[in-house]
Amino acid sequence: MKEKLALLKEKLSEIADLRAASAVLGWDQLVNMPEGAAQDRGEQIATLENIMHTKATSDEIGKLLDDLQGYMGELGPDSDDARLIKVAKRDYDKQTKVPSEFVVRFARATTVGQSVWEKAKVASDFSIFKPNLEQLVELRREYAEFFKPWDHVYDPLLDDFEPGMKTAEVQAIFEKLRPEQVALIKTIAEKEKVDRSFLFLEYPEKGQWDFGEEVITQFGYDWKHGRQDKSAHPFTTSFGIHDVRITTRVKENYLPTAMFGTFHECGHALYEMGVSPGLNRSPLADGASMAVHESQSRMWENIIGRSKEFWTRYYPRLQEYYPTQLGNVSLDAFYRGVNAVEPSLIRVEADEATYNLHIMLRLELEIALMEGSLAVKDAPQAWNEKFEEYLGIVPPNDADGVLQDVHWSFGGFGYFPTYALGNLVSAQLWEKMSEDIDDIDGKVAAADFTPILAWLREHIHVHGAKFEPQELVEKVTGSKITPEPFIRYLKKKFGAIYNL
Amino acid sequence: MKEKLALLKEKLSEIADLRAASAVLGWDQLVNMPEGAAQDRGEQIATLENIMHTKATSDEIGKLLDDLQGYMGELGPDSDDARLIKVAKRDYDKQTKVPSEFVVRFARATTVGQSVWEKAKVASDFSIFKPNLEQLVELRREYAEFFKPWDHVYDPLLDDFEPGMKTAEVQAIFEKLRPEQVALIKTIAEKEKVDRSFLFLEYPEKGQWDFGEEVITQFGYDWKHGRQDKSAHPFTTSFGIHDVRITTRVKENYLPTAMFGTFHECGHALYEMGVSPGLNRSPLADGASMAVHESQSRMWENIIGRSKEFWTRYYPRLQEYYPTQLGNVSLDAFYRGVNAVEPSLIRVEADEATYNLHIMLRLELEIALMEGSLAVKDAPQAWNEKFEEYLGIVPPNDADGVLQDVHWSFGGFGYFPTYALGNLVSAQLWEKMSEDIDDIDGKVAAADFTPILAWLREHIHVHGAKFEPQELVEKVTGSKITPEPFIRYLKKKFGAIYNL
Repeated sequence: MKEKLALLKEKLSEIADLRAASAVLGWDQLVNMPEGAAQDRGEQIATLENIMHTKATSDEIGKLLDDLQGYMGELGPDSDDARLIKVAKRDYDKQTKVPSEFVVRFARATTVGQSVWEKAKVASDFSIFKPNLEQLVELRREYAEFFKPWDHVYDPLLDDFEPGMKTAEVQAIFEKLRPEQVALIKTIAEKEKVDRSFLFLEYPEKGQWDFGEEVITQFGYDWKHGRQDKSAHPFTTSFGIHDVRITTRVKENYLPTAMFGTFHECGHALYEMGVSPGLNRSPLADGASMAVHESQSRMWENIIGRSKEFWTRYYPRLQEYYPTQLGNVSLDAFYRGVNAVEPSLIRVEADEATYNLHIMLRLELEIALMEGSLAVKDAPQAWNEKFEEYLGIVPPNDADGVLQDVHWSFGGFGYFPTYALGNLVSAQLWEKMSEDIDDIDGKVAAADFTPILAWLREHIHVHGAKFEPQELVEKVTGSKITPEPFIRYLKKKFGAIYNL
Repeated sequence: MKEKLALLKEKLSEIADLRAASAVLGWDQLVNMPEGAAQDRGEQIATLENIMHTKATSDEIGKLLDDLQGYMGELGPDSDDARLIKVAKRDYDKQTKVPSEFVVRFARATTVGQSVWEKAKVASDFSIFKPNLEQLVELRREYAEFFKPWDHVYDPLLDDFEPGMKTAEVQAIFEKLRPEQVALIKTIAEKEKVDRSFLFLEYPEKGQWDFGEEVITQFGYDWKHGRQDKSAHPFTTSFGIHDVRITTRVKENYLPTAMFGTFHECGHALYEMGVSPGLNRSPLADGASMAVHESQSRMWENIIGRSKEFWTRYYPRLQEYYPTQLGNVSLDAFYRGVNAVEPSLIRVEADEATYNLHIMLRLELEIALMEGSLAVKDAPQAWNEKFEEYLGIVPPNDADGVLQDVHWSFGGFGYFPTYALGNLVSAQLWEKMSEDIDDIDGKVAAADFTPILAWLREHIHVHGAKFEPQELVEKVTGSKITPEPFIRYLKKKFGAIYNL
C-alpha cells in the first residue's frame, strides 16, 4: 500500500505542477501579457487544462484511489495521508461524473456568456444577456443532475465551493442573519450621515502603494515567497505554497480601494503561505473552501484593518504619507469615515453592515432560478424588489442591478454565498481567538500581529484543504458556521460608531 | 493523408503550447519570481518538460510521420506542410535515438556541473571544475555515439544548434577567417588608442531605458506583441509568435551595455515576431538555427546600431538624454568610442574585430576535447596559449580564462561557433540587402528601417525554421555561409576608423 500511496502522490504532484503552470500563465495574462497574445495564451491554458483533466480522471488514479480506501483507517483518519486520499477521491468522483462532452459544451457557453454579458452591461440592457443566462441556468441544472441523488438542486453547485455544505444549512444561517442586518441598517439610516468626503481627495499612487506594503509586511506577508503587482481587478494566486502573489489596483481619487484591497488580498495570501509544507504539490495545498478563504481576507481587511485599534496605531503613519490631505482630519473622523454605513447599489463597494444583504438577495435569486420557481426573464424585477426590501433603494438600471456581477456569466452559481459565509466565519474565529490570545485589541493597537498570525497558522492555515469547511470551523470554534458572532460584532462596532 | 496531417498538427501544437508554457515559467523565473520559489519552479518546469518529451517521442507521432513521408512530394517540397513533416521527422528521430535513461543522467550532470562551475569560477580554480568537465565531455561523446555514423564526433553536437551543418564546413570557414582577423587587430594595435572614457561616466538608468525603447520602436519592435523587462542577463524568449519578450540589464557607469544589449535582443525578437502566422504553434515557429538567429541580433546591434549612419541620426537624440555627459563629446569621438578595438579577456565584452577570435579558440578546444586529442586537465594551458596567439594577451587567471563562460558547465558543446557564424551571416545578408535596397546607408541615416525590416521579413523571418541554415543562406544570398563579406565589412569599417 505504501508504494501505491507514493505512486498516487507522484501522480497528484504532477497535476499540481500543471495547475501551478496554468496559474502562472493566468497571472501573467492579467499582469504582464501584451494585448496581442490573448488568443495564443487561451490555447496554451486550454492545452494545460486538457492534460490536467485527462490525468486527473485517468483510470490509473481511479484504481489507486479504490485500492487505497481500506488503507485510510490504518493511516489515522485525520492524518495528512488519509485526508489526501479522501480529498483526492472526492475530487476524482466529482470530475468523473461529468462527461467530457458536457465540460466542452459548458466551457463554450461560459466563454460566449461572458462576452455577451459585457456588452449587455455596457448597454445596461438585460434582454441582451437573457438568452445566455437561460442557457447557463439550464446547463447548471443539467450539471446538478450528474450528482443525483441530492436534497436540493443547488447542493452540487454549492459543493464546488463549500465541500460538504448543504443549501438548507446556508438558508438556515441566512434566515437568522437577514432580519438582524436589515434592522441594523434601518436604525443607522435614521442617524446623521458620516462625512467621508476626505477619502475622495487626490492621493498619489506611490504613497498608497508604499503604505499598503508597509502594513502587510507587518501583517506577516513574506516577500521571499510573494510579490505585489497591479491588475485591473485585485486577486491572489499561488503556484504552490512558496510563491503566493497578490495584485491590487489604485484609485488616486478614492483612498480605500487600494488600501483595503491590499489588506484583503494579503489575508488570502497568508492562508496559502501558511499551509503545511508537507502538503505542497498536492490537492491539499489549498484553502478548505471559498468561505474559509474569505474569512481570512475579510479578517485582515475588516476586523483588523478597519478597527479603531489598527488606526490608532497606523493613522499617524498614513498622515505622514498624506499630510495635506489628512493633516486636519482627526483619527475619530477618519475611523468613522472608513466605516460609514450607507446602503448602495454596488456589492463590491458595500460597507460591512450592508454587504451580506447584497449576497442574500443573490443567493435567493440563484436558488429560485435553479428550482425553476423564478423565470430568467423575471430576474431583473425580482432583483429590484428584493433590493428595495433589504436595502431601501431601487436600482435605476440593469447595469447597476441584475447585471452588475460577472459571476452568472461564467455559470458561477453557488459562488456568492461564500462571500457572506466568509464574513460570518471571520467573526466566529475572531471571537475564539480573543479568548485564546491575551488582550488581542492591544496587540492590534501595538501592530503586534505575530500572535494573531500564529493562531491562524496553527488552527486554520496549516491544515490546507484537509478538512471540509463546517468540520474545520467546528473543530476550531466548537460550533459549525453560525451568524451570532458576526451579529454581535456588527452591533458592537456600529453601535459605538453611530451611538445606537 | 489530410486527416493524418491534421492530426499531426494537432499533436505538434499541443507540444508547442507546452513549450510556450515552460518558456513563460522560465521567463517569470528570471524576471519576477520571488527567491523562495526556486525549488517548486524547478519541479514545475521538469514536469512540463517530461510531458513534452513523452508526447514528442510517442509512437503515435512516429507512426504519423512515417505514414506522411510519401505525402511530402505531393505537397511540394518547399511548402509549409512538407517542411513541417520534414522538420518534425528530423526532431523525432533525434529525440528517439537518445534513451530516456541517458537524458536523465545528462540532466543531473549538468545541474551539478553548473553549480560546481559557479564555485570554481568564484574561486578562480579550474581544478574544482575539472572532474565535472571530464564527466560532461564523456557524456557528450556518449551522446554523439547515438547518432553514428558521422564524419566527425563533433557533428551531432553542432547539429543541435545548426541543423545539417558539418564540423568540416565550420572549420573551413574559420580557417579563412582567422588569419584575416588576427592580422587586422595586429595592425590596429599599432595605432593610437581610441578614447572611450566618456562611456564610463554616470548614466542614470531611466535615460538608457527610454533611449533604448525609442530606438527599437523605430526598428519595428511591436509592443502589442512584446515587452521589455530587466534581468541579470539579457535574453529574448517567445511564447509563440504573438508574444516575444526581451530583457536587458542596465549599468549606470557603462553606457554600451543596456543600449547595444537592447538593440541585440530586439534583433532576435524581430525574427520571432516575423515568422509566418501559419507556422505558429508548430516546430517551425522558430529560427532556422542559432547562427541565423544571431545574424539578426548582430545586424541590428552592430551593422546598424554601431554604424556611422545610425549615430549621425541618433547621437543628437542621445545627447538630449545626457547633455552633461555627452554635450562636449563630438559625433566622431562617440562613434569611434563605441567601436574601439582592444583585445580583451572577456568574450561578452569583446568588440566586433576581436569577438570571433574568442569563439575560434573555444571551438578548437571543444573539438580537441571531443576528439580526445586534448585532455581536460590540459585545457587551461591550451586556452592561454591560443589566447596569446590570437589576441596577444595571456589570461591572468582561470576565472577570466577557461572558466569564464557558463556553456561547458551545462554540456553545451557546439553552441559557441554559432556566435561567430552569426556575425558572418549578418554581413553576408547585409551585402545582399545593400544590392536590393536603394541607398541602404541613407535609409539608416534617416532612421527609415522599414525597407530593411521588410527585406528581412520576406527573405528570412517569414520562413521560420522551414529551412536548414546553409540552405536558407544560399537561397537568399546565392552562396552558403562564407567569411568574405564579414572580412570586407571589418576592413572597410575599421580601416576608416583607424586610418589603415
